[in-house]
This record gives sequence, structure tokens and C-alpha cells, in this order.
Amino acid sequence: MQRILSTELAAHPYEKVRVEGWVHRIRRLKSVSFLIVRDAAGLAQVVLTDPAALTATEESVVSVEATVTPNAQAPNGVELTAPVIHVHSAVDVPLPFEMHRPELTASLPTQLDHAALALRHPARRAALRISAAAVAGFRATLEAHRFVEIHTPKIVESATESGANVFELDYFGRPAYLAQSPQFYKQLMVGVLERVFEVGPVFRAENSDTARHLTQYTSLDAEMGFIDGHRDVMAMLTTTVAGMFAEVTERTGYATPEVPSEIPAVHFVEALRIAGAPADEPDLAPAHERALGEWARREHGSEFVYVTGYPMRKRPFYTHPDPDEPSYASGFDLLFRGLEIVTAGRRLHRHADYVAALSAAGEPLAAYQGYLDAFRYGMPPHGGWAIGLERLVARLIGAANVREVTAFPRDPHRVAP
Amino acid sequence: MQRILSTELAAHPYEKVRVEGWVHRIRRLKSVSFLIVRDAAGLAQVVLTDPAALTATEESVVSVEATVTPNAQAPNGVELTAPVIHVHSAVDVPLPFEMHRPELTASLPTQLDHAALALRHPARRAALRISAAAVAGFRATLEAHRFVEIHTPKIVESATESGANVFELDYFGRPAYLAQSPQFYKQLMVGVLERVFEVGPVFRAENSDTARHLTQYTSLDAEMGFIDGHRDVMAMLTTTVAGMFAEVTERTGYATPEVPSEIPAVHFVEALRIAGAPADEPDLAPAHERALGEWARREHGSEFVYVTGYPMRKRPFYTHPDPDEPSYASGFDLLFRGLEIVTAGRRLHRHADYVAALSAAGEPLAAYQGYLDAFRYGMPPHGGWAIGLERLVARLIGAANVREVTAFPRDPHRVAP
Repeated sequence: MQRILSTELAAHPYEKVRVEGWVHRIRRLKSVSFLIVRDAAGLAQVVLTDPAALTATEESVVSVEATVTPNAQAPNGVELTAPVIHVHSAVDVPLPFEMHRPELTASLPTQLDHAALALRHPARRAALRISAAAVAGFRATLEAHRFVEIHTPKIVESATESGANVFELDYFGRPAYLAQSPQFYKQLMVGVLERVFEVGPVFRAENSDTARHLTQYTSLDAEMGFIDGHRDVMAMLTTTVAGMFAEVTERTGYATPEVPSEIPAVHFVEALRIAGAPADEPDLAPAHERALGEWARREHGSEFVYVTGYPMRKRPFYTHPDPDEPSYASGFDLLFRGLEIVTAGRRLHRHADYVAALSAAGEPLAAYQGYLDAFRYGMPPHGGWAIGLERLVARLIGAANVREVTAFPRDPHRVAP
Repeated sequence: MQRILSTELAAHPYEKVRVEGWVHRIRRLKSVSFLIVRDAAGLAQVVLTDPAALTATEESVVSVEATVTPNAQAPNGVELTAPVIHVHSAVDVPLPFEMHRPELTASLPTQLDHAALALRHPARRAALRISAAAVAGFRATLEAHRFVEIHTPKIVESATESGANVFELDYFGRPAYLAQSPQFYKQLMVGVLERVFEVGPVFRAENSDTARHLTQYTSLDAEMGFIDGHRDVMAMLTTTVAGMFAEVTERTGYATPEVPSEIPAVHFVEALRIAGAPADEPDLAPAHERALGEWARREHGSEFVYVTGYPMRKRPFYTHPDPDEPSYASGFDLLFRGLEIVTAGRRLHRHADYVAALSAAGEPLAAYQGYLDAFRYGMPPHGGWAIGLERLVARLIGAANVREVTAFPRDPHRVAP
């Protein structure tokens, strides 16, 4: 007998079918009991007239052979009657928290301690499906625009991109480091494939336990060659975010906000003014980002806003200056609902410019040998971005903490399960 | 003027266009010079009647505005005449090796030392495109069968899956380890989404410098719940490999071998006999795998062969025994052209079986707390596989070394560039 998913049952009235899944809930009434089975698609209601036939406890895994019986009052308009239940795996211990409530009421740390269980809750699970759909939309949009997927090293020789915040590991007796981003490698690959993207883990040894930081997160990186300036990168990013949200809605039914074809963009200097920050601030604080998010919604009806032209002095050495105002970067951040979810920009592409920038930063050129090679041997004007997947999804579904949309989050105090 | 890719030029006869790319080769003849420009798509020939106009050297990045002129003897049937050349980035040093030969003649170590340059060679670049297409086919096939993409931790608390061969890192003053595989996490996620896959890096601190080992490689993992046995996993894997090869051919034009709808399968005991190995061998050596590959081609006309039922004593603790012959595993490897590229199988799914297996292996249960949680709270029968991407691609295109199909390979002696 072929297995039928819970959401497909209504298409099989009066048929005998097999349903498999987890015991989501048991409700024992006077003359009848209900067994709610949860599978990958949803929930199915099984009716038992003999309560003694029901020995399985919640979260046990069962296979139920039964008849699909229309019942307008049951979920999906059907219930399963005259069941024969086989238990694949019995649960014989109490659960650490109830799984059948509309929301998990256990504290987040308790949920994370029992992640293998908590993630089964329909709300937590839905966030993971939204995350997967967003990534699929990211890839599909970029592949439609000639981007090629790459896989780059996560173990690197030098802690170059930023001296601090890197994890050191023992590489056959030598020190090596976990890559903080695929930045250098995706740039090198522009020299090979012109347009590339990578979806992969990045690692930050930042000892800050906030609701928006993880020590490992999924970075959605892209880099494109032969651009005229950072506006080409901005246009491609807007298209990509729109493609991601469209795919989320297509795959999961989740209603995503409109991505304007022209996302409002404000220069950093103007952004400080809007946020009411001092004009000499070198960066935007979280409160400034929130103020800008409110401004974009109020003034432009947009959940998104670009902030362009951050001061060069706070940007990494590979940042390309704005040709018209060299003390500001030819780059931008994307804020979504008042939170920075993307950092983007144009990069230097001439070898001499890298030598000058690294020298000015007091960096030893030797540590950048493999990277500088690409520029010595010819690179086109290029730029790209990095989207933090967990931040984007948390902001999209209104989760207060990125840990709620990450399967097994890592932070300074959590490295298990 | 919009940029036209080299391979699209023939569609624009007599038009004035812009082509951008790298100077692939310069050929100076008596009365005329040819500049071959390489872009992401292919090569374009630019004709210069004034040799003094050509100052750019090989691998310089140029933008060429010129007229598309049909010429049956030129590549793609067109050449670019009356060019105006702008140099984005000039190369003013000699290249470490010639880039315009049909094959790179530099030794592999030299290529790897200058990876940012060597990867630009059309042959090396083609392998990366094939790799990307294979991954796209992997995802598309699985998503069409209800699999959901996941992202799991690469930093783990315990060196559990196999005590040896793990990289240790400093996690805020405590030891932690790089994940050797997403095995445990993908199993836990079967409890959440029933069918999951992950494409991501895995890390092996194996100090062996062979043509088929890397310390970081890309693992294509899948895991599925509610199986009847390992044959369900095998059928899904066959479908997936066929989908991967179809996508490679679709995207790149590379002719892939037929994937039989029923890949021949031999039991381990029979495999030893075919390979002429002693009957008490616990595993297959590379020479045995090659013999089996030849046998499959000769006897079944297949480039693929499954070897089932490896002895339990050499398999990891989570391996499910064959219900009919419990000293053999309910699992299998897939050999492609005489090389193991996939390990697959059914896993234990009952908590008591895990406790017994770990105890028999002398493993402390406490180290497996988060993992065992999933089984304590109900898991279905399940199984899955891990495909080594680089091995598969190397075998597909006939590369002798996995380093030839990896952008920036990592091995015990190489952690840069």
C-alpha cells in the first residue's frame, strides 16, 4: 500500500491508505480518541473507537493503515477511520516540552538544548523551509544571469581579512584559520568565470552573544566582473532579493513584502542626518539602522533601503573608492526592516592599487601572495555582495533572534548539539 | 554600447559591438596582428592592421569596440575589425606559464601555486562548470522528490564520528572540531523534514597525499525517512546521479555516460571473488575497485556498479545491519569507473539500538547526547548517502587527480592560495 501524505488525503475519499509520521497529539474523549499524526506535509486526524488500541505516546513514529473518511469538521475535511497502527519507534520518556501547542512555550535555550525535537515543531520547521526556498531563489536568479556556483576553501593560511575574530586550528602541526568569508576567493574566481556565487558557511570568532550574531552562519555571496560601477551590483542585488522572495512565496506560500524595482538609496551622510546621528559618525549603529528602516517605510513605502558611500576609513582595504568622492566607498549596505542584511560594493581591480592600499594599511604583502597574483595577472572592474541568510530569514518572518531560524546555531557559549 | 559575449558575435554581423575579456593570445604576423580575447563564454579574434596599436600583453583585461566581420576561416566564423582597445588592467610581468596552449604544460604543483591564473585556462575552467552543473542537477533532482536543503554546523563539540582524522580548533578557549561530515545532523533533520540534503564542505585531517584525497572537499549529502530498506536509498541515488549527469550535459554539452536505470549490484562477498581478493578481506582496496569497475563494464556494459553488504565490523556504529544477514551492512557503495564515489546505507533508527551499538563500540553515551535525543524522541527508518563531488567530477572528465577539478585544493602540504 503506497504511503499518502497528510495533505493529499482529501484526494482519496473512502480509500484505504497508509499514513506515516510522528504522533503529534493524542486526545482521549469519553467514547472516542483522536490521534493526530504529523508528517512532512502537515497533520492528519486518526479516529480510534477502542482506546486500548492506542499505546503509542507523543513523538512516537507510527505507520497507520486506515480508511479516508470525509468529515467536514476534521482538518483538511477528512479523517482516518478503522486504523491499524504499527509503531516504528516508541517514545518511552516524557518530552522536555509540549510539541502540539501552536507555539513552543519552552525558553529558547531549552529549545536549542533539544534542537532535534524543537525543530520538529511546525513553526520552527516552517522557518527552515523558508530558508531553503530563499537559497533556491538566490541560485536560480543568479544562474539565469550567467553566475556560476563555486566552492572555496574554509581553511586558510593567514588571518588576513581582519586580524581579529578568526578561529585558529591545528593544521598538521601548523596554525591555520577558518575563513571569515569567501571574499578573496570569489574575487579570484571573477578572473576565471566572470560571475560567481557561493552559498556556504562562514566563521566569526566574535565573542558577542546578541540576537543577530552567530559564530557560524550561511553567507550568500556573489561577485561579478566587467561592471561600470557599484550601481550595476546594486541592480543585480535588487533582482536577486526579488527572486529570493518570489521563490519563498512560490514554494511555501509565505507572503513576502514587495521588493521595489528601484529600492530607495540614501548616501551615508544623508543617512546620518535622517537617523539623527552626529555627522562625524564613521558607521551606523543598530538604532540608526532602525530609524532608516522607519524612514524608508514612511517616505517610500519600502521595507528596504540602500545606504551608499560609507566612509572609506572604516571599510576593508579592497574597497573601491567612489570616483567622484574618494573619501567615501563605491559600495552600499542593504537594510531590510531596519537591519543590515547585505554588505556590497565595488572592489579595487588593479594590482598597483592593492599594493598601495595594503601598504597604507601597514599589511605585509607576502601574506596576500595568492590573492595579489590574480591582480598581477589581470582583473576586470568587479564587485559583489554577501547576504547573511539567517538575518534575512529572521527579519522576514519576524523572529526576534537568528537562533530561531538556524537548525543548530553556534555562538560563543553553544557548540552543541 | 552593450557588451556582446564572444559566442554571440556571429549573431551581430557588421554591427559595431563591445567585447570584454582577457588577452588570451597575441599573434604578430608581417602585415597584421591577431589579438585573441577570452571571455566567460569563449574566444574572439580581433584583427589589428597597426601593430603599434597593440600594447596590451597576455592576460591583460581589455575592452574592445570593433565591427563584427564575417570570415569563414576565423573562430565562430567572425572576427572583429577596426578595433578601439581600452585596457582595464595591464599585465606588466611575465606569466609563470603559457595560458594559450590547448593544455597547461606546467606541473600540477606550479598550477596550484598560481591557481588564480591556472584556473582561467579553458580546460581547468570547464571542469569547474561541470562541477557546478553536477551540483545543480543534484539539488534539482532531490527537490523534485520532496528533499529540503539544510545547512548544518561545521564546528562540533566532540570528535565523535571517528576519533582520528579531525581538525581541532580553539573555540573561545575550549577545544572544538571541524565536522568530518554532516552525518549526524542530516539524520536529526530526517526527524524534522523527512527528506533532506546538504551541499557543503567536510574536513578530514588525514595525512595522506594521494590523487584522490583532499583535507576539505564538497560532500553531496542526502538522507531520507520512511524507507523500507536500503534498496529505497539505492533507487533514489540512481535517480539522482542520472539527474546530475543529465544536467551536466544540458548545461555544458559534456557527453556523460549512461546511468542504467538499474545499476548492477553485487554483494561484498561476490565482489571479493570478482576482484580475486581473499575471502576474509574486510574492505575493498583500490585495486579491487578497479577490477570491479572493469567487470561491470565487461559483463553489464555499465560504468557504475553497486557493492552491497560490506561487513558490519568495519562500518560505523550507526550502520543498520542487513535484517537477513546481520553480519553484513544494509548499505552499499557506488563505484564509478572503478572508484568509490558514494557511501550509502540504512541507519539504525531505534534509541535502544544506538545505546547497544555505542556501548558495544566502547563509546561514552554522554558525548552523543544531542544526537541520541532525536532517537529517544522518535525517528523513522531512514538512510542516505554522501557523494564526494571532486572524485565524481575527476572520474567523469578523466582527470588523474582530484586537485585538477578543485578551485583551491587543500591537502596536508597545501593550505594556500
